[in-house]
Amino acid sequence: MTRVDAGRVSLGEFTFECGETIPDLEIAYESYGEYDGESDEPTTNAVLVCHALTGSQNVAALGEGDSGQAGQARAWWNDIVGPGKAIDTNRYYVVCANVPGSCYGSSGPSSVAPDGRASGEHGRWGSAFPPVTVTDWTRAQRRLLDSLGVGRLHAVVGGSVGGMNVLEWAARYPDDVNRVVPIAAAGRLDAQCLALDAIARRAIRADPNWNGGDYYGGDPPRDGLALARQVGHVMYLSKESTARKFGRRSAGHARNGFEFPSDPAREFFPYREVESYLDYQASAFVDRFDANSYLYLSRAMDEYDLADSYGSDRAALAAFEGEALVMSFTADWHFTVEQSAALVEAFRETDTPVANHVVESDHGHDAFLVEPGNVGPPLADFLADGVDGRAVRDRPLPETEHASSFPRVHSGLFQG
Amino acid sequence: MTRVDAGRVSLGEFTFECGETIPDLEIAYESYGEYDGESDEPTTNAVLVCHALTGSQNVAALGEGDSGQAGQARAWWNDIVGPGKAIDTNRYYVVCANVPGSCYGSSGPSSVAPDGRASGEHGRWGSAFPPVTVTDWTRAQRRLLDSLGVGRLHAVVGGSVGGMNVLEWAARYPDDVNRVVPIAAAGRLDAQCLALDAIARRAIRADPNWNGGDYYGGDPPRDGLALARQVGHVMYLSKESTARKFGRRSAGHARNGFEFPSDPAREFFPYREVESYLDYQASAFVDRFDANSYLYLSRAMDEYDLADSYGSDRAALAAFEGEALVMSFTADWHFTVEQSAALVEAFRETDTPVANHVVESDHGHDAFLVEPGNVGPPLADFLADGVDGRAVRDRPLPETEHASSFPRVHSGLFQG
Repeated sequence: MTRVDAGRVSLGEFTFECGETIPDLEIAYESYGEYDGESDEPTTNAVLVCHALTGSQNVAALGEGDSGQAGQARAWWNDIVGPGKAIDTNRYYVVCANVPGSCYGSSGPSSVAPDGRASGEHGRWGSAFPPVTVTDWTRAQRRLLDSLGVGRLHAVVGGSVGGMNVLEWAARYPDDVNRVVPIAAAGRLDAQCLALDAIARRAIRADPNWNGGDYYGGDPPRDGLALARQVGHVMYLSKESTARKFGRRSAGHARNGFEFPSDPAREFFPYREVESYLDYQASAFVDRFDANSYLYLSRAMDEYDLADSYGSDRAALAAFEGEALVMSFTADWHFTVEQSAALVEAFRETDTPVANHVVESDHGHDAFLVEPGNVGPPLADFLADGVDGRAVRDRPLPETEHASSFPRVHSGLFQG
Repeated sequence: MTRVDAGRVSLGEFTFECGETIPDLEIAYESYGEYDGESDEPTTNAVLVCHALTGSQNVAALGEGDSGQAGQARAWWNDIVGPGKAIDTNRYYVVCANVPGSCYGSSGPSSVAPDGRASGEHGRWGSAFPPVTVTDWTRAQRRLLDSLGVGRLHAVVGGSVGGMNVLEWAARYPDDVNRVVPIAAAGRLDAQCLALDAIARRAIRADPNWNGGDYYGGDPPRDGLALARQVGHVMYLSKESTARKFGRRSAGHARNGFEFPSDPAREFFPYREVESYLDYQASAFVDRFDANSYLYLSRAMDEYDLADSYGSDRAALAAFEGEALVMSFTADWHFTVEQSAALVEAFRETDTPVANHVVESDHGHDAFLVEPGNVGPPLADFLADGVDGRAVRDRPLPETEHASSFPRVHSGLFQG
């Protein structure tokens, strides 16, 4: 029987990286297992898991969750975290916190604002909530752990922007963590992904219901949020997996997803499976996620650059003296294997034991969520034995080009 | 002095592939040079150029154009078409027609409808215009050429969906054309591009100003059309060229593009160059293009499948007895070199002399527009001498995988 705690902690006054202060930052979290350490011990069994863009603190089904967490926010890594699983809750004390700016219980734009701070009659922060950054997330997690009595962490693990969150731990609190596992992540997003994220945000803001962020109590910007999510979904799948899953097939069933306004041509042209999938996903998403939070968190992701305060990735990671497992997936075009290799090189340059674990996969970015068979074993063995772990592989870095942060993502069959 | 004709031809009653009929299909066209043939001669100097999604009949600056044609619709291939250029108007009689459904003078949703056919008070067709297909474009071009007294064509040339238009000529009128040049094209779009196009259409339809297609006389759906165009633009650039052009740099200048509703966080986060570019492009685009036409033409592109009426690409091309130059670009992820190779194989299987001309380029899909130095020479030599033309190259097809229509688009540096 794994002990589970779920709750919301008031961290008191919090000043964000932007300089703005709120009187009380609340952080919703879940923890699984028993903490075996004291805050001043060099080794503990605490593992912090960092969630991805629209994830929540509800990592595993053994957590409490609530009705607001559905889809990829509910028990989102249940195949990886739990008793006897890769992050074994019989062995580790696992903590996951909903990041500031999100909408699963931590303070964010949809939270009730203190007197005089709400952006409208509805009493919510709305767009008056301070902009958040990955650094803010990391600082809030540090304070949450302090409040839980956890000092040093055995490991910090996370995928996608959660992997950026992991990197920020290594940069900001190098003495507080022994092992870091950034999965399907990079030190920064490339221009193509910045472009698509910017378009997604424009879709939300262009929805008249968004109303400058003041829609609480009225109709939320569902169309805009649905569009934003659909753009994101295309980014999470590879070209190959999209073709394999859907091809050009027509959906053989009635629409059961998000309904955008239609036109007469709908009668003549097929409603394709890929559209049906996107509409279905959008429908689930707009019911579970707040549009302002999507703006806030995607901006945090876009803004993150590991090198920013340090001058280089290498300098950012210089003080970290633990070990690193950098995991990437060959068909991921959101964060590419080349970007992960650049990260591996930065760790290596600072004499950090690091493994460049590349998973051959034709899933795209979402491989870290949907391929637990590939993610679990190296993760479990790295947590236990570091880079010498049995299932941990280390693909050699290429002789050239590996330092590029913006590598070629398209290499045709015919290229040399 | 090249002779230029520009005008609009009434083709009379036209029944679209969907079965709907309009009383008079008007086609706007331009032609450059002198026609040297008679309609029953086996060889003439006529070259039909097919425009891309949002292009126009105004191929070259020597054409007349009009104020409505701006950006990529005005003199859009001026580097390729003109006196002494690759498609030499001193030698060839070059014709380009605005496709049905577009908005540059040919009949489409923004045209004035005959009595009783308008979708609203404004008197325009709006969504009551029949759905159009690439086959409809091709049939309309055939009828336009008949009206101009042109029988057999020396060549049909086009890029992107204009290349699909070229393929449809080879399939539908195999006896009417000697040489075909599909550039940056394929027999069909893959699922990833279908997804992005579907999202772009949803953005237009979700704009309240779209109003079911009845916005003429009122405010057009500018936000929706701008979003659609921005999604398209990302597709036209490669990951590499996007990174190289913009990186993560902040725009050092004031906004001078399309203004979406903004939020307070704009003050804290940078306005990046890639956003500035997209907004600038969107601003120009919404002034020149009709939102309904975007819906109609992108649906035509998505729907096109060379094999549809024939069972296979090979069967579709079986009756064509001319020669083919298939040109593709290594960093194009809208239509990939692998898809072009599949097309080359289909031509080869029907004993058509064909060249698989692959251009090494890190521009993306738009390479066919922005790299005249790579496109012009093989095109000129192919028009003159067929596949034996001096600058025409023929890259061998790979031993395996080349028949896949949905190839890997992402191959990491580390992949075997």
